[in-house]
Amino acid sequence: MEISQLGEFGLIKELTGDIQLVNKTTIKGVGDDCAVIESQEGMRTLVTTDLLMEGVHFDLTYVPLKHLGYKAVIVNLSDIYAMNGTPQQITVSLAISKRFTVEDIQELYSGMKLACEKYHVDIVGGDTTSSLTGLGISITAIGQARPEDIVYRNGAKETDLICVSGNLGAAYMGLQLLEREKSVYNQQVSEAQQTGNKKVFDSLRDVQPDFAGKEYLLERQLKPEARKDIIEALNKAGIHPTSMMDISDGLSSELMHICNQSHTGCRIYEERIPLDYLTASMAEEFNMNVSTCALNGGEDYELLFTVPLVDNERISSIDDVKVIGYITQPELGCALITRDGNEFELKSQGWNPLKE
Amino acid sequence: MEISQLGEFGLIKELTGDIQLVNKTTIKGVGDDCAVIESQEGMRTLVTTDLLMEGVHFDLTYVPLKHLGYKAVIVNLSDIYAMNGTPQQITVSLAISKRFTVEDIQELYSGMKLACEKYHVDIVGGDTTSSLTGLGISITAIGQARPEDIVYRNGAKETDLICVSGNLGAAYMGLQLLEREKSVYNQQVSEAQQTGNKKVFDSLRDVQPDFAGKEYLLERQLKPEARKDIIEALNKAGIHPTSMMDISDGLSSELMHICNQSHTGCRIYEERIPLDYLTASMAEEFNMNVSTCALNGGEDYELLFTVPLVDNERISSIDDVKVIGYITQPELGCALITRDGNEFELKSQGWNPLKE
Repeated sequence: MEISQLGEFGLIKELTGDIQLVNKTTIKGVGDDCAVIESQEGMRTLVTTDLLMEGVHFDLTYVPLKHLGYKAVIVNLSDIYAMNGTPQQITVSLAISKRFTVEDIQELYSGMKLACEKYHVDIVGGDTTSSLTGLGISITAIGQARPEDIVYRNGAKETDLICVSGNLGAAYMGLQLLEREKSVYNQQVSEAQQTGNKKVFDSLRDVQPDFAGKEYLLERQLKPEARKDIIEALNKAGIHPTSMMDISDGLSSELMHICNQSHTGCRIYEERIPLDYLTASMAEEFNMNVSTCALNGGEDYELLFTVPLVDNERISSIDDVKVIGYITQPELGCALITRDGNEFELKSQGWNPLKE
Repeated sequence: MEISQLGEFGLIKELTGDIQLVNKTTIKGVGDDCAVIESQEGMRTLVTTDLLMEGVHFDLTYVPLKHLGYKAVIVNLSDIYAMNGTPQQITVSLAISKRFTVEDIQELYSGMKLACEKYHVDIVGGDTTSSLTGLGISITAIGQARPEDIVYRNGAKETDLICVSGNLGAAYMGLQLLEREKSVYNQQVSEAQQTGNKKVFDSLRDVQPDFAGKEYLLERQLKPEARKDIIEALNKAGIHPTSMMDISDGLSSELMHICNQSHTGCRIYEERIPLDYLTASMAEEFNMNVSTCALNGGEDYELLFTVPLVDNERISSIDDVKVIGYITQPELGCALITRDGNEFELKSQGWNPLKE
C-alpha cells in the first residue's frame, strides 16, 4: 500500500495502534503533544539519541528492514546501559521517501517492536514525515538510574583495570562480508547486462549469497544486542565500574575518550583483546590485520569499562568479560602493547561519518 | 572551513564547547553516552521530538540557517508548553551533507542557542553525522510538569469554551510571500540566462526582494515563538484548561484531534477566528480565502485549548486569547459557523507531509 493513501496520522495509527505499554513509568505514550513519564523516587533520567541515515549508516541492498529497526533501537539502549541505567522508553522519528510502502515501514517497525519487547521498553512517541531521498531514523531513548549507580566516562583512575565484554571486530567483519557479496553480485549483473544474456541476468535475481558458517559475523553486524546481561552481572557481583561506555566507533577511539575525560593514560595488550575465531579467520581471508579490525572496527556495542584493581578477582569470575589492560598516569599516553612486546600509540581511527 | 577537517568530535566540540548549563535539573550535558537529568520532587518528565528534513520542511533558498535553528527548537518547546509544562533540555541531532561548511552549522547552532537562551533550556546532547543529500534536523525536548498540571488533548467537555492565542494564518501567508518571491526571482534568472545578458544576470545576484511592511508575516513563518507567556498567564489567572495542544498543522486539524480524543463535537465561529490585518490583506492580494488560510495554514504555534464555561470571565481578561467557539456533544460533529450563519463540517486539510 502506498503511504500517501494513509497520510501521516493514518500511518502512525497503523504502526502504533497495537502498542501495549509495559513500564509503569510510562504515564502517556503516543498520541499527545508529549509523552509523559513518571520519575521513580530518587531516580535520575538518562537521555540519548541517534540519527541514522540511509547510505551513510545503512545500505538497504543488504540490510533487511526488520533488522535495521532492531539495530536502530539497540544502539540507543546500549548507550543507556553504558551509563549503568535501565532503558524504559523510546521515541521514533522517521523520514520516509516515496519508494517505501506501508508494508516496508511496518517491517521496520516490527524490528523496533521486537527489540522493545526483548528489553522491556515502551515506544512512547515520535514523528513521521517524508524525505526527498532515502530513509532517516532518529531514535531517542530514555532511561532511569539511581544517582549513585550512574557511571560516566571520566572516572577512570590510575591502576584501574580495563575490561571489555564479549568480543570485538566481528560486526566489522560482517560488514566486509556483506560488502564483498554486494560487489560480486553487482559485477555479475553488470557482466550479464554487457553480454545481453537475459537468461543469466534473470537467474541472478534469485541468487542468494552463501554465508554458510559465517552467520555469526552477519548477526553481529545486522542484529547486535545491548549488553544488559553484563550490567546485571556487574550489579549482582557488587562491582561498580569507575568509568564505562559502549563500543560503537571502535575500541581504540572509545578508550581514548575515557582516558581524555578521566585525564589518564592506558596500556592494553594486543593478545588480550577478545576475538571470535570467525573474526580472525575472516580477517585472514580478507588479508586484514585482525587486531586493527578489533581496535577500529566499531559497531560491536560491547561494553568498555574500568574497575578498581581490588576487583580483579571478582571481575574474573564474570562470564564474557575480559581484562585487557590497565589505566596509567596521563604522562604515559595511551598505548597498545603488541604480541612481540612493542608499544604503539593508540589512535582514533574508528568510524567517523564526518571525516573524508 | 570544511567539516571533514574537523571530523565528528571536532565539530561537536566547536559547536557545544561554549555551552553553559542553566537549569539545575541538568546534571550532565554533552559529552557522555547519555545526558543525565534530575527529576524535581514530584514532577513528571515530558518528552517530545521533531524531525525536519530539507526540501520537505524548509527551503534553504529563503530560510536563513540561524532562523531555521531557532524555529527547529521552538516547534519542540511549543509541544512542551502545550502540555502545560516547562521545557528544560533539548538534544540536537544533525545529518549534514557535504555542501555545508563549519560556519554554516555554527550559524544554524547560533539560532538554536538563541532560542535556548530565551526559553532557559539546555542543549544536553545529540548526534552529528553526515547525509548523502540535504540537511536533517532531529530535536528532542524534555520538560517537567506537576502531575496535576498536565493538560492532555482528551479532556474537553461539553459546553467548554474553545480558545486560541494570538492570531492564525500569518505563518502560512509568510510562506506564500516567500514562495512567490522565489518563483519571481527564478523566472528572472531563467530569462536572463535565455537572453544571455550577463549584465542582467550578474545584477540579479544582489537582488533583495522587497518585503517592506510585510515583515510581520515573514517573522511568523521564519522565527515563530512558543507561547510560554500564555501558559504563564493562564497559571497566574488560576485557569486550568481541560484540553490543550499547539497549532502546528492548522486549527481545523488540531481541533479535530481534541474532539476525537475527547469524544466530543464542536462549533467555532468564522468571525471569531483571530486574524492579523496583514494576513487578511495578503490573502486578498493572493486571491485566497483568509478563513481557509487560518483554518488550515499551520505553523502558527499558537495554543488551542478549552476551558470550563465558568472561566468565561477570567479567560476574557487574558490578553491575546480569544474564545472562538464551544464544545458540543459528539453527535453534533465538528463544524464552522460562517459569517452568514451557515454550518460547514470541519475537515483535516492541514499540512500532511505523507499525503500526495
